[in-house]
Amino acid sequence: MRALDIINNHKSIRKFTNRKIEKKLLDKILNAAFRASTTGNMQVYSIIVTQDQKNKEAILPFHFNQQMVTNAPVILTFNADFNRFNQWCELRNAKPGYDNFLSFMTGVMDAIIAAQNAVIAAEDLGLGICYLGTTIYTADKLIEFFNLPKGVVPITTLVLGYPAENPELVDRLPANGIVHYEKYNHFSSNEIDQIYCEKEALLQTKNLIEENKTENLAQIFTQKRYTKEANIAFSKVILDVLDKQGFMNNF
Amino acid sequence: MRALDIINNHKSIRKFTNRKIEKKLLDKILNAAFRASTTGNMQVYSIIVTQDQKNKEAILPFHFNQQMVTNAPVILTFNADFNRFNQWCELRNAKPGYDNFLSFMTGVMDAIIAAQNAVIAAEDLGLGICYLGTTIYTADKLIEFFNLPKGVVPITTLVLGYPAENPELVDRLPANGIVHYEKYNHFSSNEIDQIYCEKEALLQTKNLIEENKTENLAQIFTQKRYTKEANIAFSKVILDVLDKQGFMNNF
Repeated sequence: MRALDIINNHKSIRKFTNRKIEKKLLDKILNAAFRASTTGNMQVYSIIVTQDQKNKEAILPFHFNQQMVTNAPVILTFNADFNRFNQWCELRNAKPGYDNFLSFMTGVMDAIIAAQNAVIAAEDLGLGICYLGTTIYTADKLIEFFNLPKGVVPITTLVLGYPAENPELVDRLPANGIVHYEKYNHFSSNEIDQIYCEKEALLQTKNLIEENKTENLAQIFTQKRYTKEANIAFSKVILDVLDKQGFMNNF
Repeated sequence: MRALDIINNHKSIRKFTNRKIEKKLLDKILNAAFRASTTGNMQVYSIIVTQDQKNKEAILPFHFNQQMVTNAPVILTFNADFNRFNQWCELRNAKPGYDNFLSFMTGVMDAIIAAQNAVIAAEDLGLGICYLGTTIYTADKLIEFFNLPKGVVPITTLVLGYPAENPELVDRLPANGIVHYEKYNHFSSNEIDQIYCEKEALLQTKNLIEENKTENLAQIFTQKRYTKEANIAFSKVILDVLDKQGFMNNF
């Protein structure tokens, strides 16, 4: 399919048929990930493929028991990964200086660019995907489970499979909420109202507010979905993981 | 063009013709970015479009004077951005708890997934692109130049234009250097040698070693391109920026 058509029709798929993904197809998706832009051609990321049902069940709680983890035929976990690169440097009498926050950020970018290539390749091949934001929330547990060495931090996860649903396209904010020309536009309150008015007027939004018993949509985010309390707890997990995996030696 | 063909033929383009990018085309690219997966449909990223030649010249040193910055017709800077979302929450009597490291990481992922959609859309429309890794190195200066408020951190930059070069596909490591099945494979020294042997045998690698007067390719990375000293200095810049932009209140 044409790339633009795939991109413009992207929907997260959370229900899959029980059809397996053949090795040849999976290899095409992985190869597409490898072709992604990468800082200095270092390829400082890695991908863990989970297909064994027992392993899917083991990581299910780390993804907050979202059933798509055990129902999807393939799970791909993308890591920021300097382990292989560091090991290579050490074997070549080259002293790696990649135990710092910049190197972590470099690995994060490599990992996510590769992941999005995998997404578009998978959709071109007739599969559906969903990103799991939970990966960094429970990075400590995934590190233990996958036996990740120093220099490796799990960043994001994709579930892949043949779609068993065809949801509607999800709403997006108007362009002026996202795009700034030349300098940053500091929004007035009226502009914020305009940017969010269409989203707030959706029937779906009204239903969500009723279900959640909040005054408005913003409160669903701050009080239910992404609370300060949870964000602080997960921030600590990630920062501890960065320290433990050797990315905070910034001196 | 077919998505897989675009992905598998991706090359960074650093030389552009002087043909402008029409507004209609740029809008298609930006719209493709908007369709990207985003955490909880929060769209916590923003894009700054630089087309004014004076502004390109102003940001040129922040990108280490890489000439493609002034030669490309369009520069897109992708930010992790909770500013608009926070402002909306505050206007709706919802208390945002997004001044922490997790929220920064959420914005980073949103920004990069959107950027990679823009890349593939641009290539589908006949344009060439190159990522600039320098964005986070000089995030402090870009924040000042673009006048970015709290909650906004520049993460990556794309230069876009009609290609005036057609370079060869760049080498990539074999799959077993990147992909791990079920559990992480802790590489033996022999495996590292095997993973890097093809890359190390390239004529281009031999030329690079000669030019750089190092013993081998790994030393070019550790001694010339990505030194510990520079990495530590840039890590400090980013961590200071995170603090200043309000993403380190993890208590």
